Amino acid sequence: MFNCIAIVGATGAVGQEFISLIEKRGLKAKAYKLLSSARSAGKTIQLNGDALTVEELTPESFGGVDLALFSAGGTVSKTFAPIAVKSGCVVVDNSSAFRMDANTPLVVPEVNPDDARHHHGIVANPNCSTIIMVVPVWPLHCANPIKRIVVSTYQAASGAGQAAMLELEQQTRDVLAGDEAKPIIFPFQYAFNLFSHNSDVGDNGYNTEEMKMVDETRKMFHTDDIQITATCVRVPVMRAHSESINLQFTNPITPDEVRNILRKAPGVRIVDQREPQCYPMPIDASGGNDVLVGRIRQDISQPDGCGIDMFVSGDQLLKGAALNAVQIAELLQ
Amino acid sequence: MFNCIAIVGATGAVGQEFISLIEKRGLKAKAYKLLSSARSAGKTIQLNGDALTVEELTPESFGGVDLALFSAGGTVSKTFAPIAVKSGCVVVDNSSAFRMDANTPLVVPEVNPDDARHHHGIVANPNCSTIIMVVPVWPLHCANPIKRIVVSTYQAASGAGQAAMLELEQQTRDVLAGDEAKPIIFPFQYAFNLFSHNSDVGDNGYNTEEMKMVDETRKMFHTDDIQITATCVRVPVMRAHSESINLQFTNPITPDEVRNILRKAPGVRIVDQREPQCYPMPIDASGGNDVLVGRIRQDISQPDGCGIDMFVSGDQLLKGAALNAVQIAELLQ
Repeated sequence: MFNCIAIVGATGAVGQEFISLIEKRGLKAKAYKLLSSARSAGKTIQLNGDALTVEELTPESFGGVDLALFSAGGTVSKTFAPIAVKSGCVVVDNSSAFRMDANTPLVVPEVNPDDARHHHGIVANPNCSTIIMVVPVWPLHCANPIKRIVVSTYQAASGAGQAAMLELEQQTRDVLAGDEAKPIIFPFQYAFNLFSHNSDVGDNGYNTEEMKMVDETRKMFHTDDIQITATCVRVPVMRAHSESINLQFTNPITPDEVRNILRKAPGVRIVDQREPQCYPMPIDASGGNDVLVGRIRQDISQPDGCGIDMFVSGDQLLKGAALNAVQIAELLQ
Repeated sequence: MFNCIAIVGATGAVGQEFISLIEKRGLKAKAYKLLSSARSAGKTIQLNGDALTVEELTPESFGGVDLALFSAGGTVSKTFAPIAVKSGCVVVDNSSAFRMDANTPLVVPEVNPDDARHHHGIVANPNCSTIIMVVPVWPLHCANPIKRIVVSTYQAASGAGQAAMLELEQQTRDVLAGDEAKPIIFPFQYAFNLFSHNSDVGDNGYNTEEMKMVDETRKMFHTDDIQITATCVRVPVMRAHSESINLQFTNPITPDEVRNILRKAPGVRIVDQREPQCYPMPIDASGGNDVLVGRIRQDISQPDGCGIDMFVSGDQLLKGAALNAVQIAELLQ
């Protein structure tokens, strides 16, 4: 049991899931502290039946805190996570600030739980699209090393926070009323549209989100031998990400072998029925802990039998963010 | 100039685009005939300033008709296209009924215009997702043969016709009002959701839409040496399809070489700007003739330099259906 768990970014979309998961999963502490920006401080939030007042995050916030779950963006993490660590706290950080830092383990408990134990105060939670991909891909990689992944994402509004979800809703209302969509969070119309993930595009033409899927997967798999290309796209869906994943294995593998491996894999639920059609969908993944995996088939474009195609959906706010962080905290208990 | 052009399925989503394109592009005939099921017969539709009454399609409909544009589904085409041909008419068929028939050319005018001239009465219009992919892929293949394509689609409601577009709209209204979505055309909730393309899934695990992308591309490219895998997904977008396309070429190729080829390619418009981000989006492709191509980048998962990733959007009702058919008709003039 922890002494005191702090939630940094308690009023955000992920912060709210932290609170709900702490209650549901029984992540125990003698006390809980809800922290946010000055703007949201003063709000009251229920946790385990107690009404807690959200406090403003300051350098003094971490006295007596031994676990802090951060989800308030990279800038807040860069400033406050080291302060929290100095005051004796272990930080599970949902931002990208420390993910690729050599001294910071990056962990998906179904993939590399042991890495969490070698932390120096911070354990990083991977990018949501990366987590949702690696949960089903890792057990396959363990059985038959994967040489190459081609992944295209179908990402939900929740990945950009609560305001983005409200923007999708408001824009959709406006468009249906015959009015213009008013983009605020995103640079483009989101209602009934889709667009390339709006993170920065680097010199190699990949955006940051895509490079996270490449770099973070390699870091957690402890290998640079796996080749990955990703195309990240935002679609007008509320809170679960989907991904079309094409895999090239070292040795031949059949869809039945894949199903047998995934049936035993933690965090995975196979949803793959031909008649009536029943495949992973965001509305079914939303609110659930598992990554749904379906459309498992032999890739006919790899005549050597080493290819598999599949389609996955996972809740971006849960396994893609809050649940994974809480699972890391459970490893550190 | 044709003597009489008939439009079969004149009141459908594609039929309406046929009429608009005939007017805009000046596909000339002395007379026009609008045909539909008994249900829609009797409606009045304007064409080149004349109010035409939609007539019920019968075996006698094709007297004096020398060109018929069919878009009323595979069953209607199978029954009535041979009747039209017998009465001396050339049929451009938008359904899948004759696409893979060895005696029927399958044509995208930017790809294989010559094939159209070797018809035996019917020229088939490819599947919308196939057309939108091959317009930019063909000129690249001509410059540097493509060995393998991995494509994932983001398909709009229009692909399933007008009723599907209305269903997306109605479901979205219902969900925003806090009511249940009522799926009618599609088996699943469409509003704020996505799902695997609802065509039949075959023994190999691919659905019909995916196999069309494989088989039709090979037929038009006149080669079985190109390996293709496709994952087809419906997203809650109104009328333009997008596709994430990963290409493996025979020889090394750079993004600049790809841009130089595509800049001269008919039917293609490059939309590929990093700052401010400007990439293909369905709302920009809708209503336009071109396939928008962007996110052109060297695929980092192919270290031999033979890989390219790109993202495309094209209007499903225009280039994906009506425009391509009208272009075929223009070839036959």
